[in-house]
Amino acid sequence: MDDATRLTCLSLADQLAEAARAETLTYFRRPDIATDNKLESGFDPVTEGDRAAEAAMRKLIEAQRPDDGILGEEFGSKESKSGLTWVLDPIDGTRGYISGTPTWGTLIALHDGAKPVLGVIDQPYIGERFVGGLGQSHLDGPRGRDALQVSKVTKLSEATILTTFPEVGTSEEGAKFHAVAERCKLTRYGMDCYGYALLALGQVELVVEAGLQPYDIQAPIAVVEAAGGIVTDWSGGSADGGGRALAAATPELHAAALEILGQV
Amino acid sequence: MDDATRLTCLSLADQLAEAARAETLTYFRRPDIATDNKLESGFDPVTEGDRAAEAAMRKLIEAQRPDDGILGEEFGSKESKSGLTWVLDPIDGTRGYISGTPTWGTLIALHDGAKPVLGVIDQPYIGERFVGGLGQSHLDGPRGRDALQVSKVTKLSEATILTTFPEVGTSEEGAKFHAVAERCKLTRYGMDCYGYALLALGQVELVVEAGLQPYDIQAPIAVVEAAGGIVTDWSGGSADGGGRALAAATPELHAAALEILGQV
Repeated sequence: MDDATRLTCLSLADQLAEAARAETLTYFRRPDIATDNKLESGFDPVTEGDRAAEAAMRKLIEAQRPDDGILGEEFGSKESKSGLTWVLDPIDGTRGYISGTPTWGTLIALHDGAKPVLGVIDQPYIGERFVGGLGQSHLDGPRGRDALQVSKVTKLSEATILTTFPEVGTSEEGAKFHAVAERCKLTRYGMDCYGYALLALGQVELVVEAGLQPYDIQAPIAVVEAAGGIVTDWSGGSADGGGRALAAATPELHAAALEILGQV
Repeated sequence: MDDATRLTCLSLADQLAEAARAETLTYFRRPDIATDNKLESGFDPVTEGDRAAEAAMRKLIEAQRPDDGILGEEFGSKESKSGLTWVLDPIDGTRGYISGTPTWGTLIALHDGAKPVLGVIDQPYIGERFVGGLGQSHLDGPRGRDALQVSKVTKLSEATILTTFPEVGTSEEGAKFHAVAERCKLTRYGMDCYGYALLALGQVELVVEAGLQPYDIQAPIAVVEAAGGIVTDWSGGSADGGGRALAAATPELHAAALEILGQV
């Protein structure tokens, strides 16, 4: 990617996060918030904020980079003519969003056909924006700008592990997660995409999830990798396509977790 | 309580939260943060921030209201001569604190000998202060001041339920929690004291916990009650002393949860 494209894309990613933020905050913690049921079975709320935020982001991409592709949670995919595709999840963690928790986020990734080269994890209510890739690796937050740098921990017994739900996908997947978690120092739940942000900040060492969509994981991959961490699926391959993800601060932790996830 | 005492105590509570905030934020997300192991078994980190925040709060109480009692997590209790006691948990959710999550809080309660009459749940990183009691019921946050008002939901099947850990105390206590949770619309984990704040905001309907200390629950009790909610133990009695707590938005939800918690 040439330097002009790089700078344009970084600027656009920031604008996308701002545009989404205006929409998601309009609906966040509103008592009359409209939700409906996207899946026939199970509970997967979609909010007006989700739709409005993705529409606002798509409009900016169409206006500024019409040849780029788009893959969004709410409005499907548009093929890329430029080789670059924006991958959008306007509200990752809708269950957290409708419960008022501040750990949902807007996920924005840029995929170059081979891998996600830029990721943004934005938490609008707190006012935190984690950016990784295309030469960037930082958090802009309430206390200014901090560099992203993963933890140096190499032993499971010293690691903190996160996932969103104790159930973690199927019962077999759940059993594998718990087999890793019981070797760790501390387990925390309920963080959605914020878990990957905390890993990039060096605050936790492992995130293990299953049942992901591509737009759930591509921004986290770019952010964690820019901070020095590793993200793969549960057999060590690419996690770009969603499904099962293992994010680790160090190669040692990654190998130790992978061994358990692959064999249980 | 006379009006002058009421105003003095409200002002002091605010000063306590400010003083604690300065200390807790100094140590929050520092890579080299000092933790040690308070319990021989299990993992219960105590940070420098925890101790420094309680010391700062005690100093203010001693200076401004020397006859009031103090019950603190870190430095024990001081008897009350005035009939009023400040109940302090400088960092509720130390596991969340050392993991970098923004859902820990500083808890400040004022107990009048009969019950907690004032509560503050402060989340310093986000900049949110939930205040309930002595005529107050509000959140001061990043978007200004909002009134606290619990949800009007009356059916478990429409309720969101929170707890900190899926394990919830002993295995028997955990089974009781899950018996309530499986009747609810949505279950979320990992919120520590922030769960009670979300209940007071009308965002969630139930919080069920066990294994609490008095300083873990007295501020939440005052905040939730000021917002129109109900907090008791699992048999409908006072939860001031800690142990098991059930917080509910409405009498109907409280009764429905109590019936299950009491009988499983």
